[in-house]
Amino acid sequence: MNKNFNKNYHYKNKVKKNNNNAKVKIIPLGGLDQIGMNITIIEDEDDIIVIDCGLAFPGDDLLGIDFVIPDIRYLIENKNKVRGFVITHGHEDHIGAIPYIIKDINVPIYGTKLTLALIERKLKEQNLEKIVSLNCVNFGDTIKLGNMQVEFIKTNHSIVDACALAIYTRAGILMHTGDFKVDYTPVFGDAIDLKRFAEIGSKGVLALMSDSTNATKTGFTMSEKTVGNTFDTIFSEYKNNRIIVATFASNVDRVRQIIDTAFRYDRKVDIEGRSMVNIINTAQELDYIDIPKGTLIESDELKNYPDEKTVIITTGSQGESMAALSRMALSNHKKIEIKPSDVVILSSTPIPGNEKAVNKVINELSKKHARVIYHDTHVSGHACQEEIKLIYTLVTPTYAIPLHGEYRHRIEAAHIIKEVGVKKENCIVLDNGDILEISNEKANIIGKAPSGGVLVDGLGVGDVGSIVLKDRQSLGNDGIIIVCLALEHKNSILVSGPEIISRGFVYMRESEALLSELKKEVIRVLNECQDKNINDWSKIKQNIKGTLSSLLKKRLKREPVIMPIILEI
Amino acid sequence: MNKNFNKNYHYKNKVKKNNNNAKVKIIPLGGLDQIGMNITIIEDEDDIIVIDCGLAFPGDDLLGIDFVIPDIRYLIENKNKVRGFVITHGHEDHIGAIPYIIKDINVPIYGTKLTLALIERKLKEQNLEKIVSLNCVNFGDTIKLGNMQVEFIKTNHSIVDACALAIYTRAGILMHTGDFKVDYTPVFGDAIDLKRFAEIGSKGVLALMSDSTNATKTGFTMSEKTVGNTFDTIFSEYKNNRIIVATFASNVDRVRQIIDTAFRYDRKVDIEGRSMVNIINTAQELDYIDIPKGTLIESDELKNYPDEKTVIITTGSQGESMAALSRMALSNHKKIEIKPSDVVILSSTPIPGNEKAVNKVINELSKKHARVIYHDTHVSGHACQEEIKLIYTLVTPTYAIPLHGEYRHRIEAAHIIKEVGVKKENCIVLDNGDILEISNEKANIIGKAPSGGVLVDGLGVGDVGSIVLKDRQSLGNDGIIIVCLALEHKNSILVSGPEIISRGFVYMRESEALLSELKKEVIRVLNECQDKNINDWSKIKQNIKGTLSSLLKKRLKREPVIMPIILEI
Repeated sequence: MNKNFNKNYHYKNKVKKNNNNAKVKIIPLGGLDQIGMNITIIEDEDDIIVIDCGLAFPGDDLLGIDFVIPDIRYLIENKNKVRGFVITHGHEDHIGAIPYIIKDINVPIYGTKLTLALIERKLKEQNLEKIVSLNCVNFGDTIKLGNMQVEFIKTNHSIVDACALAIYTRAGILMHTGDFKVDYTPVFGDAIDLKRFAEIGSKGVLALMSDSTNATKTGFTMSEKTVGNTFDTIFSEYKNNRIIVATFASNVDRVRQIIDTAFRYDRKVDIEGRSMVNIINTAQELDYIDIPKGTLIESDELKNYPDEKTVIITTGSQGESMAALSRMALSNHKKIEIKPSDVVILSSTPIPGNEKAVNKVINELSKKHARVIYHDTHVSGHACQEEIKLIYTLVTPTYAIPLHGEYRHRIEAAHIIKEVGVKKENCIVLDNGDILEISNEKANIIGKAPSGGVLVDGLGVGDVGSIVLKDRQSLGNDGIIIVCLALEHKNSILVSGPEIISRGFVYMRESEALLSELKKEVIRVLNECQDKNINDWSKIKQNIKGTLSSLLKKRLKREPVIMPIILEI
Repeated sequence: MNKNFNKNYHYKNKVKKNNNNAKVKIIPLGGLDQIGMNITIIEDEDDIIVIDCGLAFPGDDLLGIDFVIPDIRYLIENKNKVRGFVITHGHEDHIGAIPYIIKDINVPIYGTKLTLALIERKLKEQNLEKIVSLNCVNFGDTIKLGNMQVEFIKTNHSIVDACALAIYTRAGILMHTGDFKVDYTPVFGDAIDLKRFAEIGSKGVLALMSDSTNATKTGFTMSEKTVGNTFDTIFSEYKNNRIIVATFASNVDRVRQIIDTAFRYDRKVDIEGRSMVNIINTAQELDYIDIPKGTLIESDELKNYPDEKTVIITTGSQGESMAALSRMALSNHKKIEIKPSDVVILSSTPIPGNEKAVNKVINELSKKHARVIYHDTHVSGHACQEEIKLIYTLVTPTYAIPLHGEYRHRIEAAHIIKEVGVKKENCIVLDNGDILEISNEKANIIGKAPSGGVLVDGLGVGDVGSIVLKDRQSLGNDGIIIVCLALEHKNSILVSGPEIISRGFVYMRESEALLSELKKEVIRVLNECQDKNINDWSKIKQNIKGTLSSLLKKRLKREPVIMPIILEI
């Protein structure tokens, strides 16, 4: 899979003496004020590089919206400056918008192996893989993009191949942590390259942009390895049961630990859920996961083994209604049926907003008498307060720019960073779209780039805006009443109707009295208009709307959308 | 306020020798499978008592619904047996449905002082207070309801005056904990009457129904007093700032602690939010809160004191968009403006489902540079695992029936209860509506009572059902397209239209091409019908719907509600 990627970068990054007058711009187009949609622009005079290009999943207020992608008008306006995308890791909130943005800004993409493989898969889904230049880097590589150089530094996160960036600009060195944690005992590969953070720190770093997701959490995020120990305890306690583990598909290390534990306990492993199967295949092709021969089986083969000799690894740890675990819980899965003797481990915590969905799955599994274990079976992929302090202590930047996370996370990060030596006025909490210009001398927000986010609904990108969403909200809350009638052209005499039809308002068959009352009211309004010689149809419509609206508000305290339609005969 | 309540019950509860053949029915009409809508029926031959009568707040799937009340068809069918409501405490999920249910089942209501005062206020809002008999009990009182007796036992909870019940039936003693925790050092009044639990336990208890809300949490719920200590720490750290504290209006003890701390730090207190003001007034009238003279001020008076001499106690700790704190956060509050020097304490944890709303308020407050403190500033009102074990160890019932909570909570409770001695097969996890018949000999579910919950939307009770809700879901997700046309009666010739109008679908002004394409398609379908001599208008409608639907699915991957309306000329 990775043979298509361009490879090998041996630029030697040189630290030029910082030009004190030189300025560089940092523009986060997304990633602030929401979890997701991470994208940050670095602009050094005539060169722009784009760090990450993710999507965000919609909140409850964005009815019917599938996801949100960044508003890149600033990039389009400065298209000729854009030298490339540098991607820190392969999570959706860092790569998910690439297939949409690349249509407008087709520049080379740089990233580590797994990151690129995941991007390639996304591009293939939209038949875009051939028009895009994917360039594979190794940790330690430095690439040249215009007058800037970008160095990729090994970090730890809940997906392998995550990296931080050192960006060498005329104004000085900028660093960007990506999403990170400090894991001294990772399951796969090395610990975060703290030495390199320190070395670059010694050279003098102008600004450090850092992950704030867990900034409200005290202490240190535990090593991924601790989850492996938990699995071991659970497997040894439930020796006679089938074990089902749900986790994030992209957490290859987690899956690897489940498989390793299964192997040690002499169990076969079935992997369920399309995204889980895909990522494990990719990870195997890239040699990022080493599965003992004969361990993996298909779901059809489960029946050939006793329950206590099998493990099922599945998607659905966030309660997603279409994922494999939800389907098992609701007896909608084609091949796997939950048994009373099953042990189900949720190796995850609910992302805010998913709590109810996750609890629903736990309830349904419990009703089938499965034992569900969902405490202490997960560790975060993000740095807590002590790790944030560590990184800033090593890098000692002049400016600190907390990124990734809601405002409350970033403001808390700023509080912490201040404690470890960055001047209070140099801890800069930005908003999406802020154009921050910094030099060794000063930092100023000099303008605002468009940054609202573009809504994607099905195949439509950007055709659903605030008016449509407001309508959806009203329709969803109280439904719609349609009043349809035909008027004779000249004298506005009623020729047909009024027909009154509703959806999502009340159960019509049981509300005939109310509907006939509404009908009478419409006729009364029409007669009134005739008497008053009102021939302006928009006025007639308005009168109908107003009358029915106040009647329903008084009678039912409800405000359905009321829509009069007049046909002309 | 309490002078209207009937009072004083001095029945001496006698323990009759249990009649081994006697059976009693326990029927939870609500409170299981959701947090809220607690109502449990005890039926001893010709007598029924109803324990609690609460409402539930709707999940995201119940679009536009204000709240859900129990389906009481079983009570209506057995109306002549119902002797009274006994209410364990004054939270909405235990009293909120009374004004609705009392219209059908008007029997006396029994409860402690604050509980009744809160019920009375609810009844007054609907002008029902005069037709209802409210009867005030003290802890230790026993009332007679038909052939049953009910004893009220002091417990601790996040509202004062909470009680457990001992119900003396022919089949034996049933106990019901209500919502409870064990607080050895409560802020107001006594600790839970563990001695009485033990005494009744010694007499022999047939079944214990118990609160399972926190059954998945290990350990012991901390005393309410620990929150007071936290307030003290925060007040001493932020001596120079105004302090705003948001908490649950009904948590009188919490408010009392905030006021006490404010008094000690020589600060004036302003109370904001209608429900907060109401409950504090009620608590003062009932002597449940003792506020030092001159401590309370109105919001208008805040300006007369320096910030560091004031505290604002407010509603809105759940991020409710109309509550005082949200309005302050969004600069919509008439009288109070958040200042950068403010310290805001959220003395609460988000109820599942409210996380995003609460985080939004924290973000907005942080953007105004207020310091927001929301960790370790709250304790739960519900028993954790060790408290559940304690109660079962004291009561040693024959049967255990975990109530209150989702299935996952109740199944976990059953696991715990088993550990402390109740036989596995006697730990009974019921579903809403289950009719459980128990005697000393055996326990069986002998039938099912209607129990679905009735949806309240505005003033309409029960007129919104699953079809209407499904329509709201579709309308909310993808909007509606209305196709309106007039056909000549006999030959189905198009006389006017088609008019195509949409709401919540796309922004029409920018989608003219799509709309004219839809129009053309409708005309094509009409012509086709003419050619094929199709005169059945429902068939014509179906064809229009099908054609547009598949066009939009293909073009946009969306499925708006499509509604053809044909007027007859």
